[in-house]
Amino acid sequence: MEQLDLLLWLAIQEDLAHGDVTTEAVVDQDLDGRAVVLGREPFVLSGSRVFHRIFQLLDPTIQIVSFFRDGEEIQPGIPVFGLDGSVRSLLTGERTALNFVQRLCGIATLTKQMVKKLSGSSCRLLDTRKTTPLWRKLEKEAVRHGGGANHRFGLADGVLIKDNHIVAAGGVREAVQRARRHVPHTLKIEVEVDNLDQFEVALEAGADIILLDNFTPEMLREAVVRNKGRVLLEASGGVLLERVRAIAETGVDFISCGALTHSAKSIDMTMEMEFTTS
Amino acid sequence: MEQLDLLLWLAIQEDLAHGDVTTEAVVDQDLDGRAVVLGREPFVLSGSRVFHRIFQLLDPTIQIVSFFRDGEEIQPGIPVFGLDGSVRSLLTGERTALNFVQRLCGIATLTKQMVKKLSGSSCRLLDTRKTTPLWRKLEKEAVRHGGGANHRFGLADGVLIKDNHIVAAGGVREAVQRARRHVPHTLKIEVEVDNLDQFEVALEAGADIILLDNFTPEMLREAVVRNKGRVLLEASGGVLLERVRAIAETGVDFISCGALTHSAKSIDMTMEMEFTTS
Amino acid sequence: MEQLDLLLWLAIQEDLAHGDVTTEAVVDQDLDGRAVVLGREPFVLSGSRVFHRIFQLLDPTIQIVSFFRDGEEIQPGIPVFGLDGSVRSLLTGERTALNFVQRLCGIATLTKQMVKKLSGSSCRLLDTRKTTPLWRKLEKEAVRHGGGANHRFGLADGVLIKDNHIVAAGGVREAVQRARRHVPHTLKIEVEVDNLDQFEVALEAGADIILLDNFTPEMLREAVVRNKGRVLLEASGGVLLERVRAIAETGVDFISCGALTHSAKSIDMTMEMEFTTS
Amino acid sequence: MEQLDLLLWLAIQEDLAHGDVTTEAVVDQDLDGRAVVLGREPFVLSGSRVFHRIFQLLDPTIQIVSFFRDGEEIQPGIPVFGLDGSVRSLLTGERTALNFVQRLCGIATLTKQMVKKLSGSSCRLLDTRKTTPLWRKLEKEAVRHGGGANHRFGLADGVLIKDNHIVAAGGVREAVQRARRHVPHTLKIEVEVDNLDQFEVALEAGADIILLDNFTPEMLREAVVRNKGRVLLEASGGVLLERVRAIAETGVDFISCGALTHSAKSIDMTMEMEFTTS
Amino acid sequence: MEQLDLLLWLAIQEDLAHGDVTTEAVVDQDLDGRAVVLGREPFVLSGSRVFHRIFQLLDPTIQIVSFFRDGEEIQPGIPVFGLDGSVRSLLTGERTALNFVQRLCGIATLTKQMVKKLSGSSCRLLDTRKTTPLWRKLEKEAVRHGGGANHRFGLADGVLIKDNHIVAAGGVREAVQRARRHVPHTLKIEVEVDNLDQFEVALEAGADIILLDNFTPEMLREAVVRNKGRVLLEASGGVLLERVRAIAETGVDFISCGALTHSAKSIDMTMEMEFTTS
Amino acid sequence: MEQLDLLLWLAIQEDLAHGDVTTEAVVDQDLDGRAVVLGREPFVLSGSRVFHRIFQLLDPTIQIVSFFRDGEEIQPGIPVFGLDGSVRSLLTGERTALNFVQRLCGIATLTKQMVKKLSGSSCRLLDTRKTTPLWRKLEKEAVRHGGGANHRFGLADGVLIKDNHIVAAGGVREAVQRARRHVPHTLKIEVEVDNLDQFEVALEAGADIILLDNFTPEMLREAVVRNKGRVLLEASGGVLLERVRAIAETGVDFISCGALTHSAKSIDMTMEMEFTTS
Repeated sequence: MEQLDLLLWLAIQEDLAHGDVTTEAVVDQDLDGRAVVLGREPFVLSGSRVFHRIFQLLDPTIQIVSFFRDGEEIQPGIPVFGLDGSVRSLLTGERTALNFVQRLCGIATLTKQMVKKLSGSSCRLLDTRKTTPLWRKLEKEAVRHGGGANHRFGLADGVLIKDNHIVAAGGVREAVQRARRHVPHTLKIEVEVDNLDQFEVALEAGADIILLDNFTPEMLREAVVRNKGRVLLEASGGVLLERVRAIAETGVDFISCGALTHSAKSIDMTMEMEFTTS
Repeated sequence: MEQLDLLLWLAIQEDLAHGDVTTEAVVDQDLDGRAVVLGREPFVLSGSRVFHRIFQLLDPTIQIVSFFRDGEEIQPGIPVFGLDGSVRSLLTGERTALNFVQRLCGIATLTKQMVKKLSGSSCRLLDTRKTTPLWRKLEKEAVRHGGGANHRFGLADGVLIKDNHIVAAGGVREAVQRARRHVPHTLKIEVEVDNLDQFEVALEAGADIILLDNFTPEMLREAVVRNKGRVLLEASGGVLLERVRAIAETGVDFISCGALTHSAKSIDMTMEMEFTTS
Repeated sequence: MEQLDLLLWLAIQEDLAHGDVTTEAVVDQDLDGRAVVLGREPFVLSGSRVFHRIFQLLDPTIQIVSFFRDGEEIQPGIPVFGLDGSVRSLLTGERTALNFVQRLCGIATLTKQMVKKLSGSSCRLLDTRKTTPLWRKLEKEAVRHGGGANHRFGLADGVLIKDNHIVAAGGVREAVQRARRHVPHTLKIEVEVDNLDQFEVALEAGADIILLDNFTPEMLREAVVRNKGRVLLEASGGVLLERVRAIAETGVDFISCGALTHSAKSIDMTMEMEFTTS
Repeated sequence: MEQLDLLLWLAIQEDLAHGDVTTEAVVDQDLDGRAVVLGREPFVLSGSRVFHRIFQLLDPTIQIVSFFRDGEEIQPGIPVFGLDGSVRSLLTGERTALNFVQRLCGIATLTKQMVKKLSGSSCRLLDTRKTTPLWRKLEKEAVRHGGGANHRFGLADGVLIKDNHIVAAGGVREAVQRARRHVPHTLKIEVEVDNLDQFEVALEAGADIILLDNFTPEMLREAVVRNKGRVLLEASGGVLLERVRAIAETGVDFISCGALTHSAKSIDMTMEMEFTTS
Repeated sequence: MEQLDLLLWLAIQEDLAHGDVTTEAVVDQDLDGRAVVLGREPFVLSGSRVFHRIFQLLDPTIQIVSFFRDGEEIQPGIPVFGLDGSVRSLLTGERTALNFVQRLCGIATLTKQMVKKLSGSSCRLLDTRKTTPLWRKLEKEAVRHGGGANHRFGLADGVLIKDNHIVAAGGVREAVQRARRHVPHTLKIEVEVDNLDQFEVALEAGADIILLDNFTPEMLREAVVRNKGRVLLEASGGVLLERVRAIAETGVDFISCGALTHSAKSIDMTMEMEFTTS
Repeated sequence: MEQLDLLLWLAIQEDLAHGDVTTEAVVDQDLDGRAVVLGREPFVLSGSRVFHRIFQLLDPTIQIVSFFRDGEEIQPGIPVFGLDGSVRSLLTGERTALNFVQRLCGIATLTKQMVKKLSGSSCRLLDTRKTTPLWRKLEKEAVRHGGGANHRFGLADGVLIKDNHIVAAGGVREAVQRARRHVPHTLKIEVEVDNLDQFEVALEAGADIILLDNFTPEMLREAVVRNKGRVLLEASGGVLLERVRAIAETGVDFISCGALTHSAKSIDMTMEMEFTTS
């Protein structure tokens, strides 16, 4: 049991409210049927447990099978999930379940496209906190299903000192010192910088990780050289599919990319049914 | 007070959990500041009340002003919201608030682009139920801010008989009759059809609205002719920016488009701060 | 799983709070027993699934059987439900479960009495939104169990323009036009009128349904004549058991009646137990 | 802040769901107005704070005044509440607010009718646990507004040993002893009896209160004589308006009556509006 | 199902938030294992059902067995619970489950120590409302497991008139009369007094129970004499392990002690694991 | 607004349930009064905002002032909080508010006692996750008010590899490598060891922090020597007031102590009232 169930239940309610008037009026209560879900374009699977869970919450008598595991690449027209049970329940849950899966597969698929560009490099692709409100955990799972890694989950499990923090603290050095003093000793301290001068200051101030925001490849390369392996380096800003390889080749340890979660497009998927005489 | 507050509160918790360790460590509790939010590309505004509400829930002492109303088109670099208050609260709420606004502005902006293509036509652009789980109400508002209209909000406030319903009921006629008998008399009955033969059957069965799914413009035109103004006609399927005008010109009453909500990309926005000595 | 469970759980808590001190003190934890529920007057059954669900939520080991289906007419003294299990759980759940069933059976029974008066007529009996807060869905089910039909479930799944709306809009015509423009196209537009002049205006303004409030039978008959079958007609106001037949015979399509839900009296029911040696 | 707010909020949601489509379409957002609530029959007022609270939760800018206090007897046509503010909010909250007040006034009014029959007697009228699920606290307040007193609020704040408890424990004496041993010493022990023999046993077993269920007036009188003032006596069963005086005159201390809450009819009330140009 | 589940779930969330990063990274998802829980000092067991329930909520596939029943005295090193299942789940639930059990066993153990001092006396040891917020029900169970009895559970299931109530009412007599008039007749009336004069007044005012706060043994003895068995007497204030016997020997009926719940120290317990090859 | 409010509200409900029957019966609704809270022993203040918040949630018209800030050391008999308002609300909120403050002050006071022992040393005192379920955040604040620092807040914001993790992973090296690969790069990796051999392995495996559990002072000193300042060292196990100085003098960076939160005793505090004529 986890908070997810509450959210999924609220999501079902959002669509269902006072019931599915069409289905209740038109479909016999006793009619059973089978359905398969498949994509109309190639994609990387994510969201399987949400798909299962929504139908379980809606109607525990529905039988659901998965033909693939999250993270697998699937061709169009191939059944991904199979369902068996009350036609009413299948029709009522269809849209909510697909809304989740189409979005999560979209994220996993975009992530995989980028990760493939990094093949052979030791640089890792990270997500950000630019996720859909309330679905961060699922979206960060989708990033992992696409082969990416996760940056921090929220404001409590990582320290990231940005420009506004630095101004507020009165300088990089002061900000890092304050963090070192007040933050649990289990957390590393990451500092965001905009140029090479700031990079030098952050390095000297004792940051554990430095986020190089909107650096050109040349600037990234220069930072890698000056770093001499002392701290972890992360690049961000303008990370597009066609540029990600070049960024990785500068030698940074991580590339973080908000578009993975805020701008992936949904995968086109459909649920096809057949009926059984009961 | 509405359910939205609960969801916004959960969304804030999602990011905040045990607190914002960076900001609490680095920024003085008493430091006040000002911030403005602006876009880095042109967009249609949506989500203003969510933006305000998130900061109110987080810290009721923050002062927030809106320089525009939802639905207005705004150029890059122009301040949209102004904030004044505790720097800690501004920094802690920034990401969650922007995650909402960037997404909702994306939807309003895409909607507006499509609606402009329809200018001069009496055809109206509709959304669908392909929305982000839990944020349907906000996303449907964003569609209205972009000049679109809303299809039904859930499974209880509209009847839409789809292919699976028809098969389950044993035919279009049976499905429409059942709906007429069991559904509150305040609801119209809409039937989805795939081709002109089905269209004829639905017309005869007494549908109030007919959804023409994946019809070519020629088929749509033919349906308009055969309809002779008897029922409302709605087109759906493959509704792209470049095709929407041609669809409208067939004479259908409505065009519905899932991409408005499931595949709009986020608008690039930023929050810029300045500090005051307190 | 649905919102009902949350409400039932809160209802159980309302009675139970820190426990059932009498039962816990007086009845052995291991004592098993059987019980039946029966009425002391004739009634129409409703609320079976709530009765089952309350005991399931309280103690999943209780076995419950139903001897009738909702909607059946039952004579006094005939067992309706049978229960088997922990005596403590039976005693603790008794009052909450009966409070629901007695009220819902009261509604179904009153509805059935009215519906019988309409036998042979094509006029249908409808409920209203004058339901007990939080129990609307159950009470509207009870109306169906009694043979009635449901008016809209809430403010979002039907349009009903009342006198105050008309004044606010500046006239019937304006109100109907505004509704046509802003409301999802899946909803019909109903207008409430107080006299025949208003009826004419509503008819002309393009209403889909007209609610004739507090019309005398003569006025209702006149409205039916003038309507010539164009729109659906619904009568309301002062709908008593002894008057309902006369109203139906005027030729209106629907009669709506708030008393079904706000003034039905509870059915007198009891739970009788016998103990088994465990 | 109390649990009531959660329930009221859920009750508002029940009616409102995705919004009030009629009002939002037909009434201008900026239109202000005034309204009064009045009865169409004489009644005792109850539910004022719920009436206020619902509008506060819905729209905190609505101004509400009460012209009477709960417990006062009010004639038809006299304004009870006055409201001033957004016409949209007034129309949207009307039904939910009235559903509460009409029901609670019904309970207070029925209670008052019975209490008047007891005037001059020292016997007090009590409610029972036969209340509407989730609204017990409000309904018990309504009983007090009508001049009645409250029996226990739930299963934890009073001990009431009924026939099934007695059988389960193996006799009245055993049941009372067990209760004495296990129940907090702050609670009295009440025992329900069906006849005078059981009454004698309960008296001897050390009950603090004895509930005489379905006793005739003669039996009640006999019990009062035999009791010699030792324990409190409460009569229940078949307590009708026309019989309540006779029961009281037997000399019992309390009369408890389930009909006060389970079978009071709603008071006929209406909200009348007038508009202001804003 | 009860409110406890919600609280336990929130407690699990408190520790778990976005997951157990250590265990998820380090331990294979498929690894199964066994664990036992044991104490490192002698203790009285309490909290078994919470221990079971936390693991059930976290992972319903975990098998848990109890080797003892709540209330039993257990020596150090003896296994109390046995667990079998996913190592990940065992590690993730360990801390939250132990935090409950260690605290509850601490309460039961301290209670037992005091209760043993009372052996042979008819005086009973009571808890108070000085419990840990949200865990009162569990802590009062722990007191019973240690052999104590429970005072009232909250402000609604017992009347306790304290000094401030007396001043507010204008005297003991007035306070008792008001309580007698307004409080459900199922509740006894307890009055707290500080000295023998107040004791006399409370006795005369008709209290059912008198709480003698901070009386010396001599004063307690005197109160017992003057009472002549008329009302129940409860002693409180400065109830230490070494003084409890002397207090009981004065002849009071009850001793209530806040330290049982607010100052019991946690029992030192540990969970030891062994792994199985899966 | 934060989750704390929900928990405080549930805590108030726990005590209040159906109301405070004593106060409602005995104290006039209109009576106003003043109260002060003070300790009966010296203590360090914590919990001020909870104290304020509980009364705000219960009755927003109560005026509350703080005479001290959290973290200050306060002598017995000195007023800490002043309250002014409805006597009913003061009496009803007293117990719940004090239950929080007494416990939190107990934690802050114990922490301060230990921290004073460390004066002049660079070693810092840390709490653990052995907190009261649902109150971790407040208890960790209390530790800070006492001058201590916080270890991780939950399982997601720090990596701590314990013996069971090591066995499950197949060795320290494997465990650290897995963590390095799967855990967000913002987290340091801490390893718990029981002896000096394990310490050497952990050091070599690349831990960022090493937790030395139940080491003697001699072993701790030896670990400090061997570490040569490479990683952070934390000591735990058997941390008593009388031993804490000796542990710090071994040169470790941190001492963590579960007793701060699981075994601090409540501070003896009282609320004293005086009444005003209203």
